[in-house]
Amino acid sequence: MNDAASFAHVRKIFEDAPFLSDLGIKLTNAGRGWCEAEMRPQPRHRQQHGFVHAGVVTTLADHTAGGAARSSLDDTNDVITIEFKINFLQAASGARLQSVGRTLRAGRRIVVAESEVYSLEDGGKQLVAKCVSTLAVIPVKAAAAKAADAV
Amino acid sequence: MNDAASFAHVRKIFEDAPFLSDLGIKLTNAGRGWCEAEMRPQPRHRQQHGFVHAGVVTTLADHTAGGAARSSLDDTNDVITIEFKINFLQAASGARLQSVGRTLRAGRRIVVAESEVYSLEDGGKQLVAKCVSTLAVIPVKAAAAKAADAV
Amino acid sequence: MNDAASFAHVRKIFEDAPFLSDLGIKLTNAGRGWCEAEMRPQPRHRQQHGFVHAGVVTTLADHTAGGAARSSLDDTNDVITIEFKINFLQAASGARLQSVGRTLRAGRRIVVAESEVYSLEDGGKQLVAKCVSTLAVIPVKAAAAKAADAV
Amino acid sequence: MNDAASFAHVRKIFEDAPFLSDLGIKLTNAGRGWCEAEMRPQPRHRQQHGFVHAGVVTTLADHTAGGAARSSLDDTNDVITIEFKINFLQAASGARLQSVGRTLRAGRRIVVAESEVYSLEDGGKQLVAKCVSTLAVIPVKAAAAKAADAV
Repeated sequence: MNDAASFAHVRKIFEDAPFLSDLGIKLTNAGRGWCEAEMRPQPRHRQQHGFVHAGVVTTLADHTAGGAARSSLDDTNDVITIEFKINFLQAASGARLQSVGRTLRAGRRIVVAESEVYSLEDGGKQLVAKCVSTLAVIPVKAAAAKAADAV
Repeated sequence: MNDAASFAHVRKIFEDAPFLSDLGIKLTNAGRGWCEAEMRPQPRHRQQHGFVHAGVVTTLADHTAGGAARSSLDDTNDVITIEFKINFLQAASGARLQSVGRTLRAGRRIVVAESEVYSLEDGGKQLVAKCVSTLAVIPVKAAAAKAADAV
Repeated sequence: MNDAASFAHVRKIFEDAPFLSDLGIKLTNAGRGWCEAEMRPQPRHRQQHGFVHAGVVTTLADHTAGGAARSSLDDTNDVITIEFKINFLQAASGARLQSVGRTLRAGRRIVVAESEVYSLEDGGKQLVAKCVSTLAVIPVKAAAAKAADAV
Repeated sequence: MNDAASFAHVRKIFEDAPFLSDLGIKLTNAGRGWCEAEMRPQPRHRQQHGFVHAGVVTTLADHTAGGAARSSLDDTNDVITIEFKINFLQAASGARLQSVGRTLRAGRRIVVAESEVYSLEDGGKQLVAKCVSTLAVIPVKAAAAKAADAV
């Protein structure tokens, strides 16, 4: 796939996920093996100390790693997250969160991808989270049917 | 702290987090070193294949581990998640998600806790995710002020 | 497989790994979905502060999770570790380390297992590490040939 | 600290760890916030399929992340690994393993570092593992005394 085709495929997994729309997460760029997404956190996305909730940052990081993984495969395959680990480096308080994902290795059955989330405000940019994800490659049909059974 | 006091403290960190209310996550039980929470996933919480989004399952798992960690400390300390790792064992499709967290070790500066998320439907109960979290212990005042700087 | 057959299979992956012999790690018990192993750390296994090196504790934890995963499969399949995460709860200083692994889920392609490492001394037993591993299921022949390409 | 001072400090934690000497792991380069190490795997370092054992790769990755973390601190502080997660991207079969670590964030109490392990052979270089570690900052004296109690 070229970058334009990659973008189209990755955009689909962002647009088809209701929870991504609910959070306002949007794909902003993608090519073979990488993608970028962002969101503007709302008051309802906060945790008890007033910062963006770890679950929100994580959803952004996870989906961006997943997008990078998806962009590394051809049309017949999709990915499903098996596990990830995320480190929170700073509390996220910026008006905008940006995440960049890239594939570390795309195997026949397993893809490993990482992503970094930045908090942006007043021209400043701060790394707030680092995520490494493992994803299983599944045929598009299985994904549409019952993803878990394919793993 | 006894179990009743633990419950009161843990409940507070669930009720004070807007994103938890937004997802409908509720603390159902807690004692010294453990807690239980649950939620009823809505259509807007789904991912692209129709299952509950990993970010939703993760928020539930993370907060339950955090609740268990919080319940292991006294009144003067709070916790903030440094990192966690979560494995997704099955796609979650049940009408109700339940999570159980417990503390593995409560040190002076670091607490390690784990949580397991179950999908419940028609009397059946299935383990859908396993999470292990590392949390930093921070004084309650620092938590109220600027959590990240305390770490 | 019954427990005796499980033990035989798991023992093989302990005995066939030169690095396990080098460290003195021995399988002590195993059944369907679980196993136990132990070792007696030597001076050469220490880190700079005089405790057992994290790499030694990790090798024990990883292999025990792998043994549990292996015991959950039939004769035609083997496992290979894709990733794991380990938390160190206490410095390990005991004369003996014991590890207990159990399978959380055995899927067709992915097995998730966890293990806990204990430090034993003078009748006392302390949890020193907690590990959660993801393993890929590979046919026995592929394992013998070139494990990585099968993943 | 300048790069030369960083190198001296990091070298010390490599040279003072008996298990590192046992494996033949050597620091090759270091500066403020990063370090590089390498080793030549021996037959006794293999797993059951003939590749370098995950525990060996992990020890190299963990210690390199720790070295990077240590190089980010001043003379009065040391680090101790709280947890790490490692993904194995390829089976390691090269005659030489090289690891590069860098600090993602150095806080007052917590340092997060990542490392990548490469397998080198015949001029080729392949990424075989990716590790992200969390370390606690401890005063040098506490490290010398009883590391675990300081956390």
